[in-house]
Amino acid sequence: MAFINDHYLKLKAGYLFPEIGRRVNKFCEENPNAAVIKLGIGDVTEPLPTAIREAMHAAIDEMGEAGSFRGYGPEQGYGFLREAIAKNDFQSRGVDISADEIFVSDGSKCDTGNILDIFGANNKVAVTDPVYPVYVDTNVMTGRTGAADENGRYAGLTYLPVTAENNFVAPLPESPVDLIYLCYPNNPTGTVATKETLKQWVDYARANGSIILFDAAYEAFITDPEIPHSIYEIEGAKDVAIEFRSFSKNAGFTGTRCAFTVVPKQLKGTTASGEPAEIHPLWNRRHCTKFNGVSYIIQKGAEAVYSEQGQEQIQSLIAFYLENARLLREGLESVGISVYGGVNAPYVWLKTPGESTSWEFFDELLQKAHLVGTPGSGFGASGEGYFRLSAFNTRNNINEAVTRFQNVVS
Amino acid sequence: MAFINDHYLKLKAGYLFPEIGRRVNKFCEENPNAAVIKLGIGDVTEPLPTAIREAMHAAIDEMGEAGSFRGYGPEQGYGFLREAIAKNDFQSRGVDISADEIFVSDGSKCDTGNILDIFGANNKVAVTDPVYPVYVDTNVMTGRTGAADENGRYAGLTYLPVTAENNFVAPLPESPVDLIYLCYPNNPTGTVATKETLKQWVDYARANGSIILFDAAYEAFITDPEIPHSIYEIEGAKDVAIEFRSFSKNAGFTGTRCAFTVVPKQLKGTTASGEPAEIHPLWNRRHCTKFNGVSYIIQKGAEAVYSEQGQEQIQSLIAFYLENARLLREGLESVGISVYGGVNAPYVWLKTPGESTSWEFFDELLQKAHLVGTPGSGFGASGEGYFRLSAFNTRNNINEAVTRFQNVVS
Repeated sequence: MAFINDHYLKLKAGYLFPEIGRRVNKFCEENPNAAVIKLGIGDVTEPLPTAIREAMHAAIDEMGEAGSFRGYGPEQGYGFLREAIAKNDFQSRGVDISADEIFVSDGSKCDTGNILDIFGANNKVAVTDPVYPVYVDTNVMTGRTGAADENGRYAGLTYLPVTAENNFVAPLPESPVDLIYLCYPNNPTGTVATKETLKQWVDYARANGSIILFDAAYEAFITDPEIPHSIYEIEGAKDVAIEFRSFSKNAGFTGTRCAFTVVPKQLKGTTASGEPAEIHPLWNRRHCTKFNGVSYIIQKGAEAVYSEQGQEQIQSLIAFYLENARLLREGLESVGISVYGGVNAPYVWLKTPGESTSWEFFDELLQKAHLVGTPGSGFGASGEGYFRLSAFNTRNNINEAVTRFQNVVS
Repeated sequence: MAFINDHYLKLKAGYLFPEIGRRVNKFCEENPNAAVIKLGIGDVTEPLPTAIREAMHAAIDEMGEAGSFRGYGPEQGYGFLREAIAKNDFQSRGVDISADEIFVSDGSKCDTGNILDIFGANNKVAVTDPVYPVYVDTNVMTGRTGAADENGRYAGLTYLPVTAENNFVAPLPESPVDLIYLCYPNNPTGTVATKETLKQWVDYARANGSIILFDAAYEAFITDPEIPHSIYEIEGAKDVAIEFRSFSKNAGFTGTRCAFTVVPKQLKGTTASGEPAEIHPLWNRRHCTKFNGVSYIIQKGAEAVYSEQGQEQIQSLIAFYLENARLLREGLESVGISVYGGVNAPYVWLKTPGESTSWEFFDELLQKAHLVGTPGSGFGASGEGYFRLSAFNTRNNINEAVTRFQNVVS
């Protein structure tokens, strides 16, 4: 008898975004003429920059000549891309990360899920609440939790609430945890962590032998020079943290697919018998055994992100989305909505008006304004009463969305 | 304390190919003028066909216009590719597989590793011996085995020897198994399975409630019209088999990355409590939670494989590599080597001359002929005394390799 992994049966009915899709599709079928504006999924809308496209065109031409054709590349990524990342994203900020600590992949969603492969099933795991659902679901799938309660919280996970009451700063856990997911700039709240906040976490991890899984997919949106872009800007972090980065949101790669994960060579975990064990060779082994590298064509595109022309073009993309975020934020504030995030991040997190639950507000906004956002409760129990809007859209749609939103709530 | 997954510590020192790379690098450093010919890793060498490159160029241009830009695509793959696969690879052979049973991915190595996520840790697993090492290593990583013995065989796995003695036909297991890996045309032996052999396995799986993990990455090389290309050509297989396919070897995608996995909707496993459970929704959930789809650009390239022009071009690639295989096979046979495979597959599997072990012959061939192959024992204990040569190379290199090989053994 082929047995399934029964842990999958604990998963709640659907990933958040398919449920949103279902409701939106139903609405659109019933209202075929409604011009629905989607600010739900954080998906980029602007064309891929010229420098990136030119590099990919050239790579395709190379693939057409026997002398420059590329077959299997290094599973960890080509040296040209790993070097460019190390130099531009880390060394240029005074962070000593080397090319061979960088593992190129096809997405941060994959990496944040797959990283659990190299950790024992007995680790105590902490997540913020609200949180990116993939962290939770992949822990459920790998048997690190019990069943979900009526609020959707899984037994065995440690939830760290982040709400307006604590200014969206996650409290340290009351009892020790082994793996800690942190995401800054934060998805979904759009808030950031100061150096002091991150230092507190690094110190906690060092004191407890924990490992921080730091998701920095949105670092390019940081505008405040005091806010760290990498957890490795904090002293001692290389002993306790893995960092996830992506080209999805800074360079418009959601449909092109390239990301990377940083595993410092000095990072150690613990074997069941209590011996220290290096994490880098474990992830390297996992990457080489279960992955075959990212397309050469796509890696050449990612490399072009770091060219002078590429940097100019992606800065203009980022500025464009940040201006969208500002328009959303100020447009909502002007009608009395409490708004968080949207300054160093492409997400605006708002308190639902009146006593509306997140899903009630979702339905109201869809029905009355033909606007799609994401219910805060979809990200966790402490997200109830909040709502996320994404700044990834055209300027016209953002302006129109603000007007429609204002008409609904004022 | 962050605990590692201790099962990784059971893995033998290195994946086979890195060890080959180490020995080759050492030889090249000591013999900088040696013109080494590599017939080791099964990596394609011929340029990517025009039809595929043109489709990818056009897709990049689409990504440069706001109206045709693509962000996140469906995790399972775009409809245009899933439809093309279902129609051309299955329906055209009278096999009733539908587009929504196909999951597009970035590689069969990933898929054959990741598929274990959805199965329980308590399944009894069977592999042929020799076998593609990824099947074994990913089972070790997920804790489905004990430690390795001195021959590299892991406790708890069921090994089914395939050697010249049984004509490379895997015997049915003596005690029941739950998951069975089969790969045809076979890597590493280059042998194929007849309809009768596959029917025996399908009948076994149906009788025992087992699931067959069928790796058909090399199906395009089948020349004999009597040999099935898909396990679903066998009646009843949709109830008991998952099939893995790839564009790596037929269309030269080893560095471009696209593959797919077929999970029939009627396929069922068993929950711990003995209830039947559909596999399709589990894999769909895994795919949506831990994967974000293949690059739009690459999927457009894969779609072009099925165009009239694309089909002509890949047929010419396949014919080229098969002619290489023929040259290798006949060249070796002419000096008295026993050769298997290489007719319906791009691999030639040979008996090492005299009493040489696989690694002894590897070293001899490298030192005397500057030729790199793959030691049979690297694929499993029953591969000892065998050796694999890959037909993926230029014609000049193949001819030169045959001459050098003949000089060494005659």
